[in-house]
Amino acid sequence: MDAAAGGQQVPRGVLVLLCPLVVLNAAFIAHHFISPSLQYEGGGGWALQAAQEAEAVASIACSGHGQVFQDGVAGEGGRPVGDPLFMEPYWRRHAAASAVVLPGWHRMSYLTTDSLFQSVELENQIRRLHSAVGNAVVDGKHLVFGTGSTQLINALVHALSSYLSPDATLPPVTVVATAPYYPQYRSQTTMFGGRKYRWGGNTALWANATARRSFIEFVTSPNNPDTLLQKPVLGGSSAIVDHAYYWPHITHIPAPADEDVMLFTMSKLSGHAGSRFGWALIRDENVARRAYEYVQNSSLGASQDTQLRMLRIVKVILANLRGEEDMLAFGHDVLRTRWRRLSDIVSRSRRISLQEIHPQYCTYFNRVREPSPAYAWVKCEREEDGDCYQALLRAKIITRSGVGNEATSRYTRMSLLKSDDDFDVLMERVTDLVDAEKCDAPRVSSM
Amino acid sequence: MDAAAGGQQVPRGVLVLLCPLVVLNAAFIAHHFISPSLQYEGGGGWALQAAQEAEAVASIACSGHGQVFQDGVAGEGGRPVGDPLFMEPYWRRHAAASAVVLPGWHRMSYLTTDSLFQSVELENQIRRLHSAVGNAVVDGKHLVFGTGSTQLINALVHALSSYLSPDATLPPVTVVATAPYYPQYRSQTTMFGGRKYRWGGNTALWANATARRSFIEFVTSPNNPDTLLQKPVLGGSSAIVDHAYYWPHITHIPAPADEDVMLFTMSKLSGHAGSRFGWALIRDENVARRAYEYVQNSSLGASQDTQLRMLRIVKVILANLRGEEDMLAFGHDVLRTRWRRLSDIVSRSRRISLQEIHPQYCTYFNRVREPSPAYAWVKCEREEDGDCYQALLRAKIITRSGVGNEATSRYTRMSLLKSDDDFDVLMERVTDLVDAEKCDAPRVSSM
Repeated sequence: MDAAAGGQQVPRGVLVLLCPLVVLNAAFIAHHFISPSLQYEGGGGWALQAAQEAEAVASIACSGHGQVFQDGVAGEGGRPVGDPLFMEPYWRRHAAASAVVLPGWHRMSYLTTDSLFQSVELENQIRRLHSAVGNAVVDGKHLVFGTGSTQLINALVHALSSYLSPDATLPPVTVVATAPYYPQYRSQTTMFGGRKYRWGGNTALWANATARRSFIEFVTSPNNPDTLLQKPVLGGSSAIVDHAYYWPHITHIPAPADEDVMLFTMSKLSGHAGSRFGWALIRDENVARRAYEYVQNSSLGASQDTQLRMLRIVKVILANLRGEEDMLAFGHDVLRTRWRRLSDIVSRSRRISLQEIHPQYCTYFNRVREPSPAYAWVKCEREEDGDCYQALLRAKIITRSGVGNEATSRYTRMSLLKSDDDFDVLMERVTDLVDAEKCDAPRVSSM
Repeated sequence: MDAAAGGQQVPRGVLVLLCPLVVLNAAFIAHHFISPSLQYEGGGGWALQAAQEAEAVASIACSGHGQVFQDGVAGEGGRPVGDPLFMEPYWRRHAAASAVVLPGWHRMSYLTTDSLFQSVELENQIRRLHSAVGNAVVDGKHLVFGTGSTQLINALVHALSSYLSPDATLPPVTVVATAPYYPQYRSQTTMFGGRKYRWGGNTALWANATARRSFIEFVTSPNNPDTLLQKPVLGGSSAIVDHAYYWPHITHIPAPADEDVMLFTMSKLSGHAGSRFGWALIRDENVARRAYEYVQNSSLGASQDTQLRMLRIVKVILANLRGEEDMLAFGHDVLRTRWRRLSDIVSRSRRISLQEIHPQYCTYFNRVREPSPAYAWVKCEREEDGDCYQALLRAKIITRSGVGNEATSRYTRMSLLKSDDDFDVLMERVTDLVDAEKCDAPRVSSM
């Protein structure tokens, strides 16, 4: 996730100020009108009451620029930053189709009706989705659910290293990624690493490694943070290919991915980051079994509440694919418009630049599509802006420094997945930053 | 969780046979009547549709002896075994008050409105609950949520061992528990253990350990499997006290627990095992911070969908405490009735025996209460029944062998938390087993 992004605190602060009455109303509804002491002794109507409550709270929307949650506590800063909220308008439009109702007696078991930790029906729908979108080959693959793809990062390292380093006499497996890489691979492998596997850093360090050493290589494609499609670089390594962003609203799809171990997440597909739901597609049965056992041992599976909700979400996505209300077309529209706006502004700048992305043919849309990356990978061009994150922060633009990705501090990541309001504020501030260049003294060194 | 328990497969199989039409109906509803392609363009009524659907599915209840889930796939064995479904009738009675509605746009963020991975409002309600029940002191404690208390097992080992063994030159911390203990402590510590901590087995092995060795001791109180209240036995160890069962429907509460590190879970409090929600109460700020970071690093928090649902559940419990619809009184009634039924049958047996539990004063009920344990810790008394699990299995009673608890195979655990139907079948089979003793030849060795 993106813990830091473009300047949302001011508009949210304003929204909170505009909506105090609304927060009070929600609290009133939550504590009095729909008090838990109201009990229906079975029979019809129980779900309607919950539904009416949800609608009452949902209708309090601060003119569409904020929202009140059922457990909202009036805070200082308002909403958090950096979330993939760009999909929220789509789900507001599809509120009926996408809603689930969970009465207290529902889903109490550890297991699904199939006596598994994961829903077979949800697995079937996910397989259908991959096949219909054409972004991954599911035949001959095993599917393992996790509490977000985050939980599966270490589940897969664990599963593969049990295979690569089956006994204690062998050296630990070295876990690597090519910089700039997603920092969670490092932080999680460092936290969990021990006898069987250890974090080894950038693949560049291991280009001449001896053949006897075993590697697990994380490959994110499209990459987080720089959004380029990637392949493993260490020959003979076991690759975990993180396809979190390999969906046609975020990237072109040249062909279905078919690697041995692949990671996906709802966070970036539908924007449901808070649900914590991800899955792995794994060719080898033993690796899949070990990953499933890891999830079972560390958390007894992913939340059944969430699995039920994700089933509904995936069904809505599937039912609308290639239709007028295609979620992927919606997402692509949002992101390509954002990228175009940002690119237009930055094209006037000599101070900051963005990664280059070209329009490419996409098998899903069956045409050449405009770029729509999840992130801008910003480079500060001026010599004195060696810490690009700090340079942008002075312009009230919050990004995530490239240092965390093992890139240099000259780079920083800007999320384009945020809410519409937050993105508008980001654009205002980037425009101010670029406009201010005209006022700067001309710089000899860059002539 | 209890992966094996008393003989549910036959009755559930029968239910599946009785309800094929019902499963078809649910599938029809899911795929046609409430197809995801139905879209409401905002406005009123979206939640009502979802609610009507949930009620339609919920009303298909196989005369109260089974249920159809919205993502149900007709399976062979029917419902899984060993779940804490004893609370389901309570939540069916309180369907209205306990229901939550989650439209697609709700809770998409990684974070709550307070920019945290965990809901402050849910934390407040949990603190209120502990104070009102009187089973734990929350003042001066930090609260950390997890994907079940299961995720927090290793989160706490990680957090404490960072403290006990801060650098690599120190020997690993030894993680122990007193047999019979909950096997997940061993399986998880063995899976994650490495440089900083290692599984050390039964505390009995370490009674004479040198003072230089650091220990983390798991203490489950009441204990799983034998349901007795427990204290740490190794002086000077850091204890993680698992109070999963320290609620007045399952045990008497002599006083509020006030250990430095305590674990709780919704699975055993309300029966919502599938939601995967647990929490730790931690006195030391640094230990709490490390545990919170562990959860963040390994899964980016617990599901927000589940947090919202648990908020509602806790509010219902709180609103009814000590009233006519007290969930804890309901749970106690169910479990004490079950214990009495089982004890009555087993009292006629010379082949199997149960742990002894006496009525004790409980501060919550403000009276001496009858025993209501979550598990029967069954001992096979005959010499030839050295493998008690197998002996019961031959009578079609599925239990969990004491071997997993590092007890001898002469013991086995029988869950009393299952559904009413499953418990009835269990009682039938235990009755058959005991009645069959009369037909056995008198045994000289036991005279």
